[in-house]
Amino acid sequence: MSFHNPIVEAGVAGLAELFRARAVTPSEATEVYLARIERLNPSLGAVTALDVEGARAAAAASAARWREGQPLSTLDGVPIAVKANIAIAGLPWTSGIGAYRGRLPARDAETVERLRAAGAVILGALNMHEGALGATTDNLAYGRCHNPYRHGWTPGGSSGGSGAATAAGLCAAALGTDTMGSVRIPSAYCGVFGFKPARGFISTVGVEALSWTYDHVGVHARSIEDARLLAEAASGQVLALKAPEGPIAVLDFEGQVKVEPAVANAFAATVEAARTAGLLVTALRLPDYDFSRLRRAGLLVCEAEGAVVHATALGEDPEGFSAEFRRLLDWGAKQPAVKLARAYRDLAKAVAEVEARLAPFSALLTPTAPQTAFPFDQVAPANQADFTALGAFMGAPAVAFPTGLSPDGLPLSGQIISHDPAVALALAKTLAAAAPRSTPAGFTA
Amino acid sequence: MSFHNPIVEAGVAGLAELFRARAVTPSEATEVYLARIERLNPSLGAVTALDVEGARAAAAASAARWREGQPLSTLDGVPIAVKANIAIAGLPWTSGIGAYRGRLPARDAETVERLRAAGAVILGALNMHEGALGATTDNLAYGRCHNPYRHGWTPGGSSGGSGAATAAGLCAAALGTDTMGSVRIPSAYCGVFGFKPARGFISTVGVEALSWTYDHVGVHARSIEDARLLAEAASGQVLALKAPEGPIAVLDFEGQVKVEPAVANAFAATVEAARTAGLLVTALRLPDYDFSRLRRAGLLVCEAEGAVVHATALGEDPEGFSAEFRRLLDWGAKQPAVKLARAYRDLAKAVAEVEARLAPFSALLTPTAPQTAFPFDQVAPANQADFTALGAFMGAPAVAFPTGLSPDGLPLSGQIISHDPAVALALAKTLAAAAPRSTPAGFTA
Repeated sequence: MSFHNPIVEAGVAGLAELFRARAVTPSEATEVYLARIERLNPSLGAVTALDVEGARAAAAASAARWREGQPLSTLDGVPIAVKANIAIAGLPWTSGIGAYRGRLPARDAETVERLRAAGAVILGALNMHEGALGATTDNLAYGRCHNPYRHGWTPGGSSGGSGAATAAGLCAAALGTDTMGSVRIPSAYCGVFGFKPARGFISTVGVEALSWTYDHVGVHARSIEDARLLAEAASGQVLALKAPEGPIAVLDFEGQVKVEPAVANAFAATVEAARTAGLLVTALRLPDYDFSRLRRAGLLVCEAEGAVVHATALGEDPEGFSAEFRRLLDWGAKQPAVKLARAYRDLAKAVAEVEARLAPFSALLTPTAPQTAFPFDQVAPANQADFTALGAFMGAPAVAFPTGLSPDGLPLSGQIISHDPAVALALAKTLAAAAPRSTPAGFTA
Repeated sequence: MSFHNPIVEAGVAGLAELFRARAVTPSEATEVYLARIERLNPSLGAVTALDVEGARAAAAASAARWREGQPLSTLDGVPIAVKANIAIAGLPWTSGIGAYRGRLPARDAETVERLRAAGAVILGALNMHEGALGATTDNLAYGRCHNPYRHGWTPGGSSGGSGAATAAGLCAAALGTDTMGSVRIPSAYCGVFGFKPARGFISTVGVEALSWTYDHVGVHARSIEDARLLAEAASGQVLALKAPEGPIAVLDFEGQVKVEPAVANAFAATVEAARTAGLLVTALRLPDYDFSRLRRAGLLVCEAEGAVVHATALGEDPEGFSAEFRRLLDWGAKQPAVKLARAYRDLAKAVAEVEARLAPFSALLTPTAPQTAFPFDQVAPANQADFTALGAFMGAPAVAFPTGLSPDGLPLSGQIISHDPAVALALAKTLAAAAPRSTPAGFTA
């Protein structure tokens, strides 16, 4: 199954080919996405603010460049949507928080500036988990964002709108942010690629995520090539694909992280696919890495730093925050300083130990999340970010890649972490290719 | 005035020449320093542990190498002393804290290993302000370390023993640590050079300073050439001297940091000397840098991280800490986490702003401390570290260099901060050369 509309099916990389072949214009592509948003978003809840005029004007300008054979980049004219904590000039920069409903930035975030300079059409802002602290995107202020594979089920988070919009074909690709897994978890739950380059690779200026220590900007896309192209344009840096030269470590998480059977089976199949592809894979345990303790340490860093980020608004408009988000920030804010200092130290120490164990390997392969998406009425599993947080703490490039659907029809995902983004991207491409591709049924038309 | 003994007068660089010329052997040099320590330390209080046998054995081995014309480095056979928070195998690794009186490390700190590999003779451990948190070195557990220029007056701190031992000629040069000024302040108060290379330039493995965020290892020496040689051996990296290519910013601190008249006059003379030397100097204000607020933020980081560093001993042996040190750590530990998170952020932001203002300049010139040494019975001025903390927060190379004596006979000092250590060292050499050299009267014999 795939998208019936060739413009949506083309994603990012294919769209440039269509533009070059004069089969489609950027204005036509933009209208297709705007129409899909109008038709499909009301029940999906992925898009929270649209810049229809701006998108049309950008598309027209791009169309003129393509007509003259002078596109600014491969991304020229490609419709991109952006997580709501990344500033878009003139659109509400909400970070998914009610208190910021009226905040209209005068300037784009640096990464959005880069996208515009590459000719991209910025469609608008995407829903997210409030304040980027959480992974359900059950947002009380801006509405639930649903999983395109199952209404009433979470798309994951915090970049839930980015994962859902990309999977549902409401944009060619999307920007998200990732502090402990916020790009990769929704990519996993929605069955798309989620690529978090190394910390700082994409500028965080004009991005209000959660924790200045661990925030990253990343991309959501329907193919590795699309993810690569968007990350290049968003960063202004070149990205390649490269086969690994050394062995791949396969995380043996037995007894450390509780993983759903469907995820464990898919992971085993991914490992088998790696072997079949001729990759040298070796099981690796991280016996000193206490997943839940370090996740909690990371959360404390997020809560305490988040309390600083939102201090003014928390004081002036406490009702502009959900009780739950306020409770988390208040809790973090009030912990003793020594506990926060210890969290920073424990995390740095754990990363150093993991790095030492990973030194002989080209990459680390793990599941992306220990489970598939779950219904909104179910309590979010505490260990959702256990595998993704590791990559965030390391500040290393990490890719979530789709590995098919579970027996009950929900997306499965594997994660590759490698200090070489070219290796991470190449492995994700190889391993995803071994699993069946899927498209959410309600969105193919 | 200078040291009558040619071995002490030779410092580090001159000693290698004497060894090469066979005028002196490492064993003779070591005996001179051991004898001086025996004679002068009881009233000075700079040395807290000696390794007489180890030093003699190292000197004998070095003597054999020099005889064979095979020295390991220019530092081969040079007697060096080490601050008590830097591990020396088999000597009490006290960090100036009573609770650690019996802690005998099996291994040297990495930097001490490097010094031994270069052939240096490690004499022993030097007194310091308890736990490196403070700048008087009035140590209740290991005794007061006095200023060689005036008994009953502080040598500064926290590397007070390193500054005093170097100034008094109890070692050729010394290692210290610097978190907010702990190498540079005692160097200033004792009239020697204090060089803190960039953060991480000298390994901190096996060094228990205070704050893993801001700790640096640095050197105390009686000349820039000596400082350069010791920092090279301690780091295993090459250091040169290089004239600045751009203008030098001179900090205009008027209305921001209260500076003693003697220090202000000496600073004006240093600026004049820079002009005379043909350097382009420009006054620079840092209007957004709130010296006292940021110093307090830095102190909170030190207190909270220090509380983590010493948590076990604080729990098991609270009486092994002075009430004052315990009070500081307890206070830091108990502050709300949000305050600590804000301190980290404010410091990072302030550094980014300062870096932007310093971008057009090759270096920044400031006084080292706002005042000269003071009597132990006087309350330590709160602003002692205002100028040095800036260099620590930046993580940039910084040199304190002597600029003569105040009208009442106490050492004065200027500070050069530059991201290029070669420029920092070269400027410190030029500017120190413009002021009269001095040696503390009671220690010349």
